[in-house]
Amino acid sequence: MTITIVGIGLIGGSLALSLRDYGIGNRFIGVSRRPETAQKALDLGLVDEILPLEEAVKAADIVIVATPVDAYMTILPQILDMVDNQIVIEVGSTKSIVVKSVKNHPKRSNFVATHPMAGTEYSGPEAAIHNLFKNKLCVLCDVEESKPEFVTTIGNLFKTIGMRISLMNSDDHDKHTAYISHISHICSFALALTVLEKEKDEEAIFNLASTGFESTVRLAKSSPDTWVPIFRQNRDNVLSVLDEYINNLLKFKGLMLADSYEKLHEYFEEANKIKKILK
Amino acid sequence: MTITIVGIGLIGGSLALSLRDYGIGNRFIGVSRRPETAQKALDLGLVDEILPLEEAVKAADIVIVATPVDAYMTILPQILDMVDNQIVIEVGSTKSIVVKSVKNHPKRSNFVATHPMAGTEYSGPEAAIHNLFKNKLCVLCDVEESKPEFVTTIGNLFKTIGMRISLMNSDDHDKHTAYISHISHICSFALALTVLEKEKDEEAIFNLASTGFESTVRLAKSSPDTWVPIFRQNRDNVLSVLDEYINNLLKFKGLMLADSYEKLHEYFEEANKIKKILK
Repeated sequence: MTITIVGIGLIGGSLALSLRDYGIGNRFIGVSRRPETAQKALDLGLVDEILPLEEAVKAADIVIVATPVDAYMTILPQILDMVDNQIVIEVGSTKSIVVKSVKNHPKRSNFVATHPMAGTEYSGPEAAIHNLFKNKLCVLCDVEESKPEFVTTIGNLFKTIGMRISLMNSDDHDKHTAYISHISHICSFALALTVLEKEKDEEAIFNLASTGFESTVRLAKSSPDTWVPIFRQNRDNVLSVLDEYINNLLKFKGLMLADSYEKLHEYFEEANKIKKILK
Repeated sequence: MTITIVGIGLIGGSLALSLRDYGIGNRFIGVSRRPETAQKALDLGLVDEILPLEEAVKAADIVIVATPVDAYMTILPQILDMVDNQIVIEVGSTKSIVVKSVKNHPKRSNFVATHPMAGTEYSGPEAAIHNLFKNKLCVLCDVEESKPEFVTTIGNLFKTIGMRISLMNSDDHDKHTAYISHISHICSFALALTVLEKEKDEEAIFNLASTGFESTVRLAKSSPDTWVPIFRQNRDNVLSVLDEYINNLLKFKGLMLADSYEKLHEYFEEANKIKKILK
């Protein structure tokens, strides 16, 4: 089976590694806008060859689109224009806008919208790692609009590399991920800026930075090229969650200004309930 | 050498383990307000015996106070009233108020204010772990007010268990830790509340929670008994950092409302500079 990966960064590259590790696909073709990315992906052995988009799509059984999400609306219709019986998937963090962009395409049913929920704060082909997806969740969206046998093939593909599968409509997906993934990145970006602005003495930060700070600020190392398009595409959901988040911070601030520490204690006990949900 | 630990939780218990592991102290006495904590500390082998405060202080060469920080202002003067030539240290996350509480005590110079900067989101004696402090930083505050030979002894003690030592005055300590440690906890508590309030469907959270979310929200599992007193004692610094943080979030919100994604990209690039500071 020939697998074409369009956009060979953290997600595309790690998918190539996992698929090969678990014996899916024997020929991997990469497509990249940037020649240096293509070369790195070849050097790292993520793909076997680099081809122009049309040749790569024609040669493929499965086309995986893993560019930043803002490229999807252009590239997905283009790719669907080229396909015959290929399965086309994208693996982005937002879904509603993407799915709408191909809603009326004659080849819509060749397309399966997927979100393998895994990542790190690093980006580019050199960030690709083995087993990134193992024991994680893959959401398949609006599967009723895809050919059932293609949904089965793609579901099995993600199961083979160790993922659990969940079905969801794209609007629900975008609402949930705003809470569970997108807002965390905003928290971290804002925290990093706050600390960088105030603590001009970098040595003090470096010395004092605790493991707690490192864990909370980790996502602030993430690529703006990846994340700004996600916030843009999921703008309304993210703004709504951001409002809730700011309101909670203002509530904490009000309680501290009023020296209402018992009430603050109650809120923190409430927040502790996250223990039940996460391990 | 006999070491008395007052408050045998995450920090006190982990110190007992590390000191024993590295051959410092041959008798460990625990003091605890709660009988069940005392029993657990004994069962876990963190301390050899439990004694009432006064007996435990009299028997000690070094007294380590590791209760929540709100107990320090009561217990530190009490302990200093009891000492002869013992060294007394506390290991809390705030310093200015604590140091002021014993400023004029006749035994002030027996006291060394320390902050071994390490921890996890867990609490109680069962949270104590080996090597918690290895390769971390220990801040010693206002050392000019302590007997030089006691500062040397305590500095060597923390070096022996693997820590780097930094000297700082207590006001600077509290300002820096507000940025580097305390605000991260507020970010996480507020994030946990935001998600818990909105996502009533816990299954959805559990399923979708990504590693990014888990890392950002991890500190929300922390004990309010530990953290509310820290925020209270470092109120003004924490409020000032919290204001900056909220302002950054409002800036992001404004840019998203105005669809100014290029500017948002610039801010995130700026936030990326945290890479240079953290590993």
